[in-house]
Amino acid sequence: MDAVLAQLVADLPDGVVVTGATEIEKYREDFARDGSAGHPVAVVRAETADQVQRAVRWAAAHRVPVVPRGAGTGLSGGSSAVDGGITISLERMSAIEIDPACQVAIVEPGALNVEVKQAAAAHGLWYPPDPSSYEICSIGGNLATNAGGLCCVKYGVTTDYVLGMDVVLADGTLVRLGGKQIKDVAGLSLMKLFVGSEGTLGIITRAILRLIPAQTAGATLVSSFPTMTAASRAVVAIRSKVRASMLELMDSTTINAVEGWRSHGLDRTSGALLIAQSDAPAASCAAEVELMRASCEEAGAREVFATTDPEEAAMFVAGRRNAFLALEHRGSVLFEDVGVPVPLLPDLVDGIAVIAARAGVEIAVVAHAGDGNTHPIIVYDAADPDSVARARHAFGEVMALAISLGGTITGEHGVGRAKKAALPDQLGADVMALTWRIKDALDPAGILNPGAVLPDRPAAG
Amino acid sequence: MDAVLAQLVADLPDGVVVTGATEIEKYREDFARDGSAGHPVAVVRAETADQVQRAVRWAAAHRVPVVPRGAGTGLSGGSSAVDGGITISLERMSAIEIDPACQVAIVEPGALNVEVKQAAAAHGLWYPPDPSSYEICSIGGNLATNAGGLCCVKYGVTTDYVLGMDVVLADGTLVRLGGKQIKDVAGLSLMKLFVGSEGTLGIITRAILRLIPAQTAGATLVSSFPTMTAASRAVVAIRSKVRASMLELMDSTTINAVEGWRSHGLDRTSGALLIAQSDAPAASCAAEVELMRASCEEAGAREVFATTDPEEAAMFVAGRRNAFLALEHRGSVLFEDVGVPVPLLPDLVDGIAVIAARAGVEIAVVAHAGDGNTHPIIVYDAADPDSVARARHAFGEVMALAISLGGTITGEHGVGRAKKAALPDQLGADVMALTWRIKDALDPAGILNPGAVLPDRPAAG
Repeated sequence: MDAVLAQLVADLPDGVVVTGATEIEKYREDFARDGSAGHPVAVVRAETADQVQRAVRWAAAHRVPVVPRGAGTGLSGGSSAVDGGITISLERMSAIEIDPACQVAIVEPGALNVEVKQAAAAHGLWYPPDPSSYEICSIGGNLATNAGGLCCVKYGVTTDYVLGMDVVLADGTLVRLGGKQIKDVAGLSLMKLFVGSEGTLGIITRAILRLIPAQTAGATLVSSFPTMTAASRAVVAIRSKVRASMLELMDSTTINAVEGWRSHGLDRTSGALLIAQSDAPAASCAAEVELMRASCEEAGAREVFATTDPEEAAMFVAGRRNAFLALEHRGSVLFEDVGVPVPLLPDLVDGIAVIAARAGVEIAVVAHAGDGNTHPIIVYDAADPDSVARARHAFGEVMALAISLGGTITGEHGVGRAKKAALPDQLGADVMALTWRIKDALDPAGILNPGAVLPDRPAAG
Repeated sequence: MDAVLAQLVADLPDGVVVTGATEIEKYREDFARDGSAGHPVAVVRAETADQVQRAVRWAAAHRVPVVPRGAGTGLSGGSSAVDGGITISLERMSAIEIDPACQVAIVEPGALNVEVKQAAAAHGLWYPPDPSSYEICSIGGNLATNAGGLCCVKYGVTTDYVLGMDVVLADGTLVRLGGKQIKDVAGLSLMKLFVGSEGTLGIITRAILRLIPAQTAGATLVSSFPTMTAASRAVVAIRSKVRASMLELMDSTTINAVEGWRSHGLDRTSGALLIAQSDAPAASCAAEVELMRASCEEAGAREVFATTDPEEAAMFVAGRRNAFLALEHRGSVLFEDVGVPVPLLPDLVDGIAVIAARAGVEIAVVAHAGDGNTHPIIVYDAADPDSVARARHAFGEVMALAISLGGTITGEHGVGRAKKAALPDQLGADVMALTWRIKDALDPAGILNPGAVLPDRPAAG
């Protein structure tokens, strides 16, 4: 161990700084496994904000790259380790405190999303954002990516629930933003800037999250369509009448992958399956379900099934939530996260089918359809260089397609390292320049998560 | 007219640049009338984003201060004119286009909030944010201040409805952020940074706003309490059970000012009046009203009255919305906008009463109580220097009180010029330094709304 690293080890309690190769290996990649991960010199498993500050101050003094990391379940390589850098893992900072009168949760970044939900539920309260990975992903990662989920179609995304935040800046200063007050426009919206910044502007060490009263279980509608286009038409029709609390879509490739892996009672002959929920109370719920049913039938649904049995509903939703796992059993995967304005969903889906056929790869599509946010998942054979090349080509083409439809390369997973090459295509040179101005103002030495989100700086001149 | 100004006049169509003293006078102040307004050299009544760009490029070239201005209904002096600067009025840019399939409104900044609501309603859609001034305030001003309103307790504030935005930066570049897609995490959350920046970072020339299906009219509960403390207890209790679509509170000073000005049927003997609404559909609405009624009775309500008659409800709500107007008839006013965590409302209200008594001024309190956001309105005699001094002293004391309770000096009106002296007390030196880093990165010459939000830069060293 060199003398500089020894200073860091000496400055922090025993066991906080890990330098052994075997231990470090566990912190090198996230779930994207995109091959971008380098070899860090150490992992700091911080227990307190003060330890995060000490580590960042050390990194700033020695110009060492710092990669913040939550549960490591990211899908874009946002927490891939960097050669010669340190990774600061927040997994040990997992305290949760509920203030029921204020209806807020005060959480450390390593707390899992599901743990926050459970702690809130003990007080009759609810933290809505629910990524599919909510049982294994951390709140810190949710904040870093502005994570979405299934209920976001009605209840919004992570940024909508952030009231306060502690952030360690690139020089080790800790700033405290917001608080338990619900509305606050004093000064610039700095808090919202850190949400979704993927560790490139600061490290979130605490957050105050808004909670709302727990909702009723509601009803679930499962509707089978001959085509994704027909199902997409149903989505647009439903949105015009009802604020559904879930509007999820699976294509036939996904349905068959899920059923092939583990039976969830999905109809394998469907061209598309729409899972919709209403959590309106009592009689209103039944009325919403009937409006949704009519929309599905008008759009050409083959079969529509409704249930208020929570266990039955959970089985269908589990089928949707398990799509990633099921598809990973079919080969290596590249996760897309493209979004378009909702009425353009059919165009996106049709275009993806063309890309898949042309590239000779399998692309399964699951979607938070009510938000126009889709997850085309490209399945390929990592042992076959030709398959890898075709998959990577399709990966770029799907993002280009979304951009051409006025959409986004990422709706909720983040840019990370896997999608950064396409970011300028979406944002354009002027917005990229503006982004660099913010980045340079907050992290002038460029030590915070270098290589994530922002592609290499354009050459001057 | 000097030669430099003549260049601006020549570069823009006839009638766009106004230089006559009488015409300019109308654009010098906003509703705060806080005495901060200077004398600009011209007002640019822009008709297009291109004209805004031309004006800003001219200002950048000559280091002329630029104050953006919407409808001029701001309550913090955020659009007060600056000596020697230009004011860019966006009032003529008022186009509104509704895309019903995407459920978005594409609006220019001069469109009034009410006009956006009406345009959306023609398609069965709703734009929720509703400042009390919604009939006269512009969307551009709403975006600049991240405006709130009455329905925000359930439906959120302006920033929650912004999907896309065109912004003219300090060098005249126009950047296009976001779009019609609902979820988008590609790159930094730049759009959210511009919302609430009060013209200090850029000038918004177009916005894409999210719409939702129109809600039902619902039911209104009016509850009379002996004290504000009892009413505040009811607010906390209601929030734990029901997502009310309105939770507004008026103290006895406000009730009497409103009734003294124009009768709205409010009980003048009340210590506090709570106006609550539920917009849950049908049977659920009645259930929510009963839960709210029980909470009010348990908290010591003297009288509880419920109605589903929209006209009757509108009369009570108009009483609340007209509070500012009514109080302005009693003298000159200073508008506060302080917020605290909801359970601390009684502490805030009690503390304000102490401040009013000590300073010998009248302070009426109306509140978006469900969000903990209050508008203590200080009534004073502008002709009496002693009254002015006492009012100004109380103004500062109320903000200090809110800060001491862990709250904010402004929940929805913005900092502008009227509250900027108190901003560092709330945010602290480190957050102020961070704010300056952002400001300097985006507006290095400091031409955008100088003197607003940010107090004078601290001396170096």
